[in-house]
Amino acid sequence: MELIGMLDSPYVRRVAIGLQLLGLPFTHRSISVFRGVDQLAPINPVLKAPTLVADDGTVLMDSTLILAWAHTVAAPRTLAGSDALHAARVLGLALAGCEKAVQLVYERARPEEKRHAPWVERVTAQARQAFALLEQAFEQRPPTALDDAAMTAAVVWTFTQDLLPGLAPPEAHPRQRNWAAQAEAHPAFRAAPHGDGVYPVA
Amino acid sequence: MELIGMLDSPYVRRVAIGLQLLGLPFTHRSISVFRGVDQLAPINPVLKAPTLVADDGTVLMDSTLILAWAHTVAAPRTLAGSDALHAARVLGLALAGCEKAVQLVYERARPEEKRHAPWVERVTAQARQAFALLEQAFEQRPPTALDDAAMTAAVVWTFTQDLLPGLAPPEAHPRQRNWAAQAEAHPAFRAAPHGDGVYPVA
Repeated sequence: MELIGMLDSPYVRRVAIGLQLLGLPFTHRSISVFRGVDQLAPINPVLKAPTLVADDGTVLMDSTLILAWAHTVAAPRTLAGSDALHAARVLGLALAGCEKAVQLVYERARPEEKRHAPWVERVTAQARQAFALLEQAFEQRPPTALDDAAMTAAVVWTFTQDLLPGLAPPEAHPRQRNWAAQAEAHPAFRAAPHGDGVYPVA
Repeated sequence: MELIGMLDSPYVRRVAIGLQLLGLPFTHRSISVFRGVDQLAPINPVLKAPTLVADDGTVLMDSTLILAWAHTVAAPRTLAGSDALHAARVLGLALAGCEKAVQLVYERARPEEKRHAPWVERVTAQARQAFALLEQAFEQRPPTALDDAAMTAAVVWTFTQDLLPGLAPPEAHPRQRNWAAQAEAHPAFRAAPHGDGVYPVA
């Protein structure tokens, strides 16, 4: 299968790491959804990254759906009961923090006169709440394995620290900081580093 | 469990319908993420709808994650192989069309001088591509059952037709139009009608 998208997107990166953790081989093309429209449009005219092209040519989008499908190929999910509930809580908070961070990055990319202060204020507050609650969730139950939820939390942390320093100060979120540091040392993370590079690292 | 959010959100509505289809009882509170901030913030400070409060008090967000967790409670998913792949394709297109439609609705809610024409143009084109490809996917394999993917496609269609008439003209998308008409006649859809009402209908 082929994964398309740049590793500076936390959504692309969580798929690149998740496929490795599932033991599914893939090739990667680092194409921008903006500068690479001419290359991307023939593959996925919706212009979404990550885009995954399955071996039969089916084109998927949405990182959660791609990972859910990958689980059906590789290994059934085994979480149940309160583990499944806690994982859904953690992943929901990480994806909410990520969505709001991405919205702030897009807003910042607009001409200044097109930015809307009440929107920025609302989305900033939402992101901060998400990261604060994620910190609490990690305090209640520290992450131990690179399941989709804990893996994604680390990816989102790295992305947010790089693009929006100050949004979630590390000193106020020591558990996420430490967990991300630990996760980033894993071979699957190192093979798909945050940035605009290509997986796998040479 | 308790579902929080207004049924004019396609994300809230797909959860309201999905929980019914899984046979999971729930109560519903129709709270706006804007006008209802004072009520919502104590429950979910991230201010996301749908918010689901599980029986043990755990607060979840993100409609895909809520439905995935609900499946672990009610019944394991049974799709595999090409069925799972096709369902992920359909759901990805429906959620992409939905995301872009929601972005257009938010943009329209800004003061006119804060709207950014290149953004509107890009997102409009993305939405149209998603609905066109969804029509093709339905042509290849017509939906027959209310699984998450086909159910969501109907919810997104109804929402988009109501809020953004002309974005996806019915005459160009007869399969989605017909499928939505069929789905909207189902008791689970009628109990959670599109709009700002409360489930279940009295």
